[in-house]
Amino acid sequence: MAQIDEIMKEILRGSSEVIGREYIQSLIQKYLDRGEHFVVKAGFDPTAPDLHLGHVVLLQKMSVFQKYGAKVIFLIGDFTATIGDPSGKSETRKPLTQEEVLQNAQTYKEQVFKVLDPNKTEVRFNSEWLSLLNLKDILMLCSKFSVARMLERDDFEKRLKNQNTISMVEFLYPLMQGYDSVALNCDIEFGGNDQKFNLLVGRQLQRAYNLNKEQSAFMMPVLEGLDGAQKMSKSLGNYISITENPKDMYAKIMSISDLLMWRYYELLSHKTFSEIQHLQQEVQKNNIHPKEAKENLALEITTRFHGQEQAQYAQDEFRKVFSKREIPLEMPSLSFKEPIWICRALVLGNMLSSTSEARRALEAGAVRINQEKVQDINKHLEKGVYILQVGKRKFLKVQID
Amino acid sequence: MAQIDEIMKEILRGSSEVIGREYIQSLIQKYLDRGEHFVVKAGFDPTAPDLHLGHVVLLQKMSVFQKYGAKVIFLIGDFTATIGDPSGKSETRKPLTQEEVLQNAQTYKEQVFKVLDPNKTEVRFNSEWLSLLNLKDILMLCSKFSVARMLERDDFEKRLKNQNTISMVEFLYPLMQGYDSVALNCDIEFGGNDQKFNLLVGRQLQRAYNLNKEQSAFMMPVLEGLDGAQKMSKSLGNYISITENPKDMYAKIMSISDLLMWRYYELLSHKTFSEIQHLQQEVQKNNIHPKEAKENLALEITTRFHGQEQAQYAQDEFRKVFSKREIPLEMPSLSFKEPIWICRALVLGNMLSSTSEARRALEAGAVRINQEKVQDINKHLEKGVYILQVGKRKFLKVQID
Repeated sequence: MAQIDEIMKEILRGSSEVIGREYIQSLIQKYLDRGEHFVVKAGFDPTAPDLHLGHVVLLQKMSVFQKYGAKVIFLIGDFTATIGDPSGKSETRKPLTQEEVLQNAQTYKEQVFKVLDPNKTEVRFNSEWLSLLNLKDILMLCSKFSVARMLERDDFEKRLKNQNTISMVEFLYPLMQGYDSVALNCDIEFGGNDQKFNLLVGRQLQRAYNLNKEQSAFMMPVLEGLDGAQKMSKSLGNYISITENPKDMYAKIMSISDLLMWRYYELLSHKTFSEIQHLQQEVQKNNIHPKEAKENLALEITTRFHGQEQAQYAQDEFRKVFSKREIPLEMPSLSFKEPIWICRALVLGNMLSSTSEARRALEAGAVRINQEKVQDINKHLEKGVYILQVGKRKFLKVQID
Repeated sequence: MAQIDEIMKEILRGSSEVIGREYIQSLIQKYLDRGEHFVVKAGFDPTAPDLHLGHVVLLQKMSVFQKYGAKVIFLIGDFTATIGDPSGKSETRKPLTQEEVLQNAQTYKEQVFKVLDPNKTEVRFNSEWLSLLNLKDILMLCSKFSVARMLERDDFEKRLKNQNTISMVEFLYPLMQGYDSVALNCDIEFGGNDQKFNLLVGRQLQRAYNLNKEQSAFMMPVLEGLDGAQKMSKSLGNYISITENPKDMYAKIMSISDLLMWRYYELLSHKTFSEIQHLQQEVQKNNIHPKEAKENLALEITTRFHGQEQAQYAQDEFRKVFSKREIPLEMPSLSFKEPIWICRALVLGNMLSSTSEARRALEAGAVRINQEKVQDINKHLEKGVYILQVGKRKFLKVQID
């Protein structure tokens, strides 16, 4: 009994809402008693195969479930992806070809197995069953659900009130997602808070299709992006991709606020709850500098995706540039056959976007050559090797033959 | 020009609303000029193959269109009939088998060709195209229509307001009906006023599917039933079936009110508008008795479905019974081997439903034997032949051997 309590604490940590908690506990208990497995599902959109830490929050929680009997279904919603966005929300969302979907799925796999246990994970596509449905099946599906109930979905209600168009297609999406749970005979479905309605549809449909179960709905909070304000998302540019190179990953984590750091600790760190509490207290007592705590987090997460050596290297690099204002070990380099105007070199090296911008940067004292500030806007670089620096973080090695 | 004006007057007579009138005129003009045909569609529910005069209002109008170039599609909505009623409105509406649908369709055909020209009519089933739709097609269909627009449908709006359940299936029905118009490349769709929303969906979908046309919506009013109050319908029992025997058909038409008679004239008679107006004036001036006008209507309609001879016979019979209180030529007969109690004979002959009811009828003076009123509730009929009469209309011949 003590064991299951401990496990449930670990399971529930960081979750924002869980519906059907008892069912989860009974599933885990069955696994502990008899080794029986259960099915945990999370849906992913195959249009964006580049996973970021926002996705990791969910994946990591699923990996915890995998320790206690879960077979994870990593469900790729390929069926709808080949249709495009009917809501008109994103005009750029083009339908994907089947080939693109498979390619994206491959990329997904490579990424998720950095978090999930591949032996306890199955990648599935919902076209497997959705493409088999005909109109009769769909009417059957629709007959299980009422219009009034569908209109209860928060965003539908708001959009209707604000006279923003809701396509009839969007009305079918929750039913399709719910039907996925029926087809997979799911025990637990994962999602963000914004998925609550759809997760409940799955429960309702499982009842309606007489599956003799109701999936639990396990919701994790949405992770804030680097800005600490908006949800982490690729389109907002405030994200850390899990394919990001070690240096950028490390540096991006170091760029978050001290407040956001604790949030990331809770949702992303493998440290136990009490370890994190202890760390927090030490920081409050000024025994540990917040920057040190942040370095630990950056190192832990970078290590997870790139291994210890690369993460350590990223830390060393970061410290050189940002902590000691030294020149990093690696930087882009550019070579020219003849002397070049400094402004031109800065533009060709992607340091600044135009020569006039380069002029202003020089005049403002933001440009260094070999660590010496240079303000002469007419300077030409003659034969030799130079390290150009703009601001604190941009470096370029220039070689003139 | 004079010709098309006359034709349009005939076409529009009795219609309650027509959307796309110019398109109709252009179609007819093309037929007159070049003999080009166009497609007129009306959907029928295969669950109720017994057509009544309410249906005839529509069919008859279509037969007028047939004179001017229309190919009529008599569309049997078999696809949804095999599903049952998801709205829960009618608990008794069971799904039909494919066999039942075909059988009903056959019955329909036999009936509609009493009104429509079989050479210009095609009977189709919407399962032809609807059963081919998969989920992708359906999402495509749904993407053409918004939830807000669907909620504008009168009954949806009301039911939602009154918290009466609307199934998600019902939300798909108008789209399916509209898709029928796309699949058939319809020019004009027929319906009652209550169909207006669905007819407009067809227009919208034809645009969305780039058919380069918008079907006209031709609405005929709903015909009042015998009671003159509610819509003619089988379930309300206030209907005249077109398979009704000549006597009953004639008698039922004679039973309508004088006011309702003019409505029936307008919507069902083949008389021209001015002929009807003239008749109406003659009645107002007391030159013609309303009953005579009603007899003419009853004779015209009975003749249409049963031929002149049978209709004339029905009229003669009716006049005997109702006008001159004579005994009709034909009536059910019943024979017994031994004397029988009058009450028992009345029940066995379906004249009254129980012996106690028979007693009350006798006591009330409503029973005649051989045209003589009999009030003795203990009377037995001995050897011989008797004509029993209950009220004005029920007759039974009884023979005791």
